[in-house]
Amino acid sequence: MVSMGAGQKTKATFDEWANFNTVSFRKDAEKDFLQFKTDKNTEWGLWFQIESAPWIIASLVGMLTALSGAFIEHVVDYFGNARFGTLWGDCDGPFPKGVTKEQCETGYYDGGADGWWRKYMGYIAVTTILSFVSAMMTFKFAPMARGSGIPEIKCILGGFTMPQVLDVNTLVIKILGLGLSVGAGLSCGKEGPLVHIACCWCSVICNCTARYSKNEGKKRELLSCACAAGVAVAFGAPLGGVLFSLEEASTYFPMKTMIKAFTGGAVAAWTLEVCHTDPKTGVGYLTMFNANYPVGPALLEYIFFIIIGILGGCMGALFVHYNIRIAKGRAPGSPWRKKVHIALEVAMIAFITGITAYPLLWTRVISNSAIRAMFHNCANVPSTGVDPHTFMLDLCDPNDPSQPNLSMNICWLLIASAVIRYVQMTFTFGCGAPSGLFIPSLYAGAALGRVVGIFLWIFNASCEGGCIAPQIYPGVYSMMGAAACLGGVCRVTISLVVIMFELTNGLQLIVPFMIVCILAKYTGDVFTPGIYDYCITIRKYPFLHEPDDVLFHTKASDLIDDDLEMLTPNLGTVFDFKNFVENAKYGGYPVVQSLEDPVFLGYMFTEQVKDYLRLQCKNNVMINSSTRILIGRYVKELPAGSFDLTADPEVNLVDESIITVTMETPAAMVHRIFRMLGNKVIVVKQGAFVAGLITKKSFIRHMEQLHSAADHDQPAETKKEPEKKNRRASTLKAAC
Amino acid sequence: MVSMGAGQKTKATFDEWANFNTVSFRKDAEKDFLQFKTDKNTEWGLWFQIESAPWIIASLVGMLTALSGAFIEHVVDYFGNARFGTLWGDCDGPFPKGVTKEQCETGYYDGGADGWWRKYMGYIAVTTILSFVSAMMTFKFAPMARGSGIPEIKCILGGFTMPQVLDVNTLVIKILGLGLSVGAGLSCGKEGPLVHIACCWCSVICNCTARYSKNEGKKRELLSCACAAGVAVAFGAPLGGVLFSLEEASTYFPMKTMIKAFTGGAVAAWTLEVCHTDPKTGVGYLTMFNANYPVGPALLEYIFFIIIGILGGCMGALFVHYNIRIAKGRAPGSPWRKKVHIALEVAMIAFITGITAYPLLWTRVISNSAIRAMFHNCANVPSTGVDPHTFMLDLCDPNDPSQPNLSMNICWLLIASAVIRYVQMTFTFGCGAPSGLFIPSLYAGAALGRVVGIFLWIFNASCEGGCIAPQIYPGVYSMMGAAACLGGVCRVTISLVVIMFELTNGLQLIVPFMIVCILAKYTGDVFTPGIYDYCITIRKYPFLHEPDDVLFHTKASDLIDDDLEMLTPNLGTVFDFKNFVENAKYGGYPVVQSLEDPVFLGYMFTEQVKDYLRLQCKNNVMINSSTRILIGRYVKELPAGSFDLTADPEVNLVDESIITVTMETPAAMVHRIFRMLGNKVIVVKQGAFVAGLITKKSFIRHMEQLHSAADHDQPAETKKEPEKKNRRASTLKAAC
Repeated sequence: MVSMGAGQKTKATFDEWANFNTVSFRKDAEKDFLQFKTDKNTEWGLWFQIESAPWIIASLVGMLTALSGAFIEHVVDYFGNARFGTLWGDCDGPFPKGVTKEQCETGYYDGGADGWWRKYMGYIAVTTILSFVSAMMTFKFAPMARGSGIPEIKCILGGFTMPQVLDVNTLVIKILGLGLSVGAGLSCGKEGPLVHIACCWCSVICNCTARYSKNEGKKRELLSCACAAGVAVAFGAPLGGVLFSLEEASTYFPMKTMIKAFTGGAVAAWTLEVCHTDPKTGVGYLTMFNANYPVGPALLEYIFFIIIGILGGCMGALFVHYNIRIAKGRAPGSPWRKKVHIALEVAMIAFITGITAYPLLWTRVISNSAIRAMFHNCANVPSTGVDPHTFMLDLCDPNDPSQPNLSMNICWLLIASAVIRYVQMTFTFGCGAPSGLFIPSLYAGAALGRVVGIFLWIFNASCEGGCIAPQIYPGVYSMMGAAACLGGVCRVTISLVVIMFELTNGLQLIVPFMIVCILAKYTGDVFTPGIYDYCITIRKYPFLHEPDDVLFHTKASDLIDDDLEMLTPNLGTVFDFKNFVENAKYGGYPVVQSLEDPVFLGYMFTEQVKDYLRLQCKNNVMINSSTRILIGRYVKELPAGSFDLTADPEVNLVDESIITVTMETPAAMVHRIFRMLGNKVIVVKQGAFVAGLITKKSFIRHMEQLHSAADHDQPAETKKEPEKKNRRASTLKAAC
Repeated sequence: MVSMGAGQKTKATFDEWANFNTVSFRKDAEKDFLQFKTDKNTEWGLWFQIESAPWIIASLVGMLTALSGAFIEHVVDYFGNARFGTLWGDCDGPFPKGVTKEQCETGYYDGGADGWWRKYMGYIAVTTILSFVSAMMTFKFAPMARGSGIPEIKCILGGFTMPQVLDVNTLVIKILGLGLSVGAGLSCGKEGPLVHIACCWCSVICNCTARYSKNEGKKRELLSCACAAGVAVAFGAPLGGVLFSLEEASTYFPMKTMIKAFTGGAVAAWTLEVCHTDPKTGVGYLTMFNANYPVGPALLEYIFFIIIGILGGCMGALFVHYNIRIAKGRAPGSPWRKKVHIALEVAMIAFITGITAYPLLWTRVISNSAIRAMFHNCANVPSTGVDPHTFMLDLCDPNDPSQPNLSMNICWLLIASAVIRYVQMTFTFGCGAPSGLFIPSLYAGAALGRVVGIFLWIFNASCEGGCIAPQIYPGVYSMMGAAACLGGVCRVTISLVVIMFELTNGLQLIVPFMIVCILAKYTGDVFTPGIYDYCITIRKYPFLHEPDDVLFHTKASDLIDDDLEMLTPNLGTVFDFKNFVENAKYGGYPVVQSLEDPVFLGYMFTEQVKDYLRLQCKNNVMINSSTRILIGRYVKELPAGSFDLTADPEVNLVDESIITVTMETPAAMVHRIFRMLGNKVIVVKQGAFVAGLITKKSFIRHMEQLHSAADHDQPAETKKEPEKKNRRASTLKAAC
């Protein structure tokens, strides 16, 4: 009944992926259509229910994500202030002259000569404890809530199922833990993880519906929308969200889904704005980074944008390089991990973060405030209800708050704070607490960009009317630096430009942002892959990366496994077959005429057959364990008393429409089929005969092997060639 | 050698598509890779040449399109002013009191009691003459330059070649004709046609390169970028351009292309800004519509946005309905066309346009100025160098220019001008002159939206502190109306939101724009398809529309033609085969073992074989017209003196890697294969045997038939079923 292949060696390496099932978008779309189709004859109520479901879920996810975001912000605010002593009454006053309660609570006031040490110790203690709690909570209740979650989301959207990533407890722990770790002042942001939170909400809601809980393919369409909502909440950038989902997260993102994502993002942004509405003035805001620059840059300034873009790419690549080395060093099972518990490690990072962060104003306060100040124009500080010094964190001239502070001292301090945050984030990203890297990347870039801006301001002022431009805005350079650094780390381009554009509201800066982001991406790509792609690789997640050159050198015949198991129409007794199916190694098997003459007939998915068989064994009195099972469709005559697996026309157990390719099909085509058609398995045929299978997982594995061979310049393929040739020749002989 | 199918009836309907060849993205990508691959060993100079080519072309196209756009603007300005008599010295002065030269030149001043009639007559004359010249020029030299060109571009990007659409003369005539027809004051805009112009530039540049002139698939990647550049120039919206290309124009738009499109758009926007830079102030601008609204709308205002969105959708659908009726009435060969020459028709439309446009201020001046005025906030008029009345075209209070004019009179005039423009555009779009519909759609929507805004302002002012919101801005409603109307006509959503967002620079309005655009699209879709899709349908262009439900009911076996011609490895004599190939009806033929036993071996593309055969006949002394040709790969023994078509390993004439599907594959999958993998033909197999072919063209044709059958509720499929069944049964028998 079953032919066992030659070796088990290919199989062994697959075991680590055993938890991840592949989703067949193709089959799921068909399933959904058959169950939930609407046409002219559909009853109105049912029609509305079916058609509106994705819109409602997308909107609901947007709303819940925005509320989660607002909640996290409150938690961050509360604990962020706690670090400065609000918990034990350090900011209850009285204050020294010129210090306000707000300055004390937000960390602008460092305690003065008297209180400095006490506040410093308190800061370190709160940071360490909160981070430890966050990490411990994550470790105990939802290990998948750690990190940013974006690599996992990418794999899920790429068409794999990953256990626990989208569970309720991951959701709860991620929200709480994120509030704690960001509030603790760890060098991390809540922006990336909000994407994960949005996807968790989406999955939780989907699991409550009959339609989406059972259909992984359709669920992924909504998850793509959730991604957009996550970014919309993170940056107040609904369009940026849709484009992030398109560019970075989703593998398959048709226009219909995009419009829903758009709606989800809009609802999220709207909810967030309502949450942020000042009850007194009725004015809401979407993001605290808002900075308005009405005048476009001069021609000569583009030269500096180009330099910033290239440097940002280098900085990003350097971060990726070291972060990955650290990640390897502390991977589960490594000597370091055996010695140090994951939560303890977080506490250690937090302790050092606390020590290094407090002395400098911009690393002491919450990162978002520092970034906001760096992005802003001193001449353009909101006039109502804010103290310009606190708002701009001393970045403006102490005597004239409408002019930037141009002292050398400020430059050194900015550089120092950028370096501190950069090093902190290299250790923090990927640690045991929920943590994202958008904010620290923006931070490091913004600080260095501002320094460039200050230097240019000084140089520009040395000529009458400006050497470079009529006016230099250090805030613009800060934003460019931030975009360059984040672009270098994540290698996103279009979505980052849109996000920055939505943050700054300025059409004038769109072309500079484009230049910076594209240069950062391409410069970074010279050295390392993007951080998320690299994480996917070292965490050994299955993921179909962007196509590249290797694909053109390889053919389908090089991609098939030696190990091929096939079924024939005669499946043996119920007992045997049930046993086989229950312990099946693979998710599906091709059905062939006979093992000697393997004419391809169809493909059977194990899961489906298992369910059907269980049901039949329970309900069908005609069969017992010794009944013979056959695929009636392919046998000329059914023996009396045998059971036809395909007798029920409603249940289609043998899929005849599976995609087939020939031995000569280039791997580029196979890649495109997996990526674009979203199927799970491809049958490789030689004439009418089955020559092998390529599953999405085995394809990814093969691609990885080819890449690592190419990297090490080993002629891996050439070595294998003679053996392959023989195999192909013999198959050909058999086929003719 | 060749088996002729049963009937020719399917073939006949294909003849009108004979001019349009299908592009195989798959084969072209492979071809490009084999010719122009780079790796570590590539020489640096060559590497740079290959890698930088698409970037340089995209940037060059952006720059040239921006220059073309600026040139057209100048032409429009010149002739636009000519209508008001600048040519014959009507605006040389002296002027009545309070009238300036600028007011006379731009048409703000209507000639007063003395000059009114003379100016009116001059206006009508110039409008008619210029339009006639534009249409005549188009008719004589480049008929494909008429209309907006977007439907044609969609088909080209969808993977078909269309003669003349992207020629040099089309480019030249389109630029000149567009300047004339927009300058003449026809109810049309230059925005849509700029996309066509950008694509022409791209094609012209591509044809100068060895790499892209011969590779239609790769050329389409650059054309997608050109689309983005076109919209970037049209609206000063580089991001909107990329998204327009993604949403509306391109069928296949991978991330790599998107980044290039992004670059092209950025260069275009940048060039345009430089072109628009005021040499005195050094300040450039991207678009004249720029309107800044710093405060977001209040909650209650969303109700009105929803209403505007729905009404816009209805207006758009109404336009589509009537425009298509008119298009059918004046199609080539119709009674009307036989009576009236196409250029004469344009002159007639222009004559009536002139008569109806002059009396009202907002239809008299150039549309862009009117739209700009409607979008603007009276309180926010640029303070330097502009007369507020001329700038805002009397839309503000004559006594207090910072307040909108709220008189009932204004409302009636606005409604009248919207109706006039709407009716004009219904006749103008699709006429014989180059003309786009973005601007008139925006115009009609903007005027009506402004009326809604004025009413709401009056109502709002009746309560203390505002019934609806603290402040109502009629300009915001004008923008919403414009977006709704354009959205209703074109059914674009995301790109339109981004374009409006880039026009207005306001994050606060992004959610309202989303609501309006989505509602307009879905409301419009209830009544008619979008104008471009409808144009494609009635012009009978081959185009693969978005997938829909019909696809799930149909299987590959329903899609194959009765008419199937196949080749066997034994191709006859050179004379016979050459003759066959030179007169081949189809672009390719499947190669099978024998006609009785049609085991699929590979697929031969006619063009390729033709070229190879010509070359061989010329250079190869071993063959003459009586030499026998065989496909050596598939025959056991080559007869002496025969010629093996596959002897040269460098030339792969038989494609074995063509995509095959089974008879059971659902049409949805076939659709996805054509759309996502970008191939030209799919072989349908029954076991090892060829059961039929589905070409992209035949698939589109079948889809159209199924749709029209579904529309008329004819059970076309059911009627056909028994016949099909038999055919399938017999094929099955033959296969077993």
